[in-house]
Amino acid sequence: MAGIKHLVMAKFKEGAAVEQLVLDMKKLALELDIIKSFEWGEDVMKNDKYSHGFTHTFILMFDSAEDVAAYIKHPLHVEYAKKFRAGTEKILAVDFPTVIDKITTA
Amino acid sequence: MAGIKHLVMAKFKEGAAVEQLVLDMKKLALELDIIKSFEWGEDVMKNDKYSHGFTHTFILMFDSAEDVAAYIKHPLHVEYAKKFRAGTEKILAVDFPTVIDKITTA
Repeated sequence: MAGIKHLVMAKFKEGAAVEQLVLDMKKLALELDIIKSFEWGEDVMKNDKYSHGFTHTFILMFDSAEDVAAYIKHPLHVEYAKKFRAGTEKILAVDFPTVIDKITTA
Repeated sequence: MAGIKHLVMAKFKEGAAVEQLVLDMKKLALELDIIKSFEWGEDVMKNDKYSHGFTHTFILMFDSAEDVAAYIKHPLHVEYAKKFRAGTEKILAVDFPTVIDKITTA
């Protein structure tokens, strides 16, 4: 499945409602049809030298850069982003058209 | 496809042989059976505030954390990593068991 990936990483503030923020992002992903896929995970390597302190990675897939832009401006995202930003010490985000060079299905 | 994702981001040095480094990572991914999938992409948002200067994202999928560890120690990876490090100003890496909450097939 080609498309554009919107990848977000977070270092949460101490005491942030991490589970709720993850759950709310999942809800957002399920609600908005322009989000084609949503996956996330928590770093298990836990090596700050490599993670730069980021613990969570969220990968949202869209059909096009225009759809990512529409998502960013969507009222539900704007509302969510406020809560997300409030709970994070730092955020990393990149958008990239994904090149799939190898895929093995189970 | 569940599994563990080994995600690497790079900010390359000026003058680094970026295309060759990407090609060599692809070759590595195709050669090693423990790498179940390999995809990568170049950031199109180009907003340093969010990207922290990282331009390229590489996502390698493995069946288990043990397979990631075996990959890291593999002579072909060790050899590649030397070249990769030499060409990068900074690297970010996290490993996470991926939670797929939404998937839409084309």
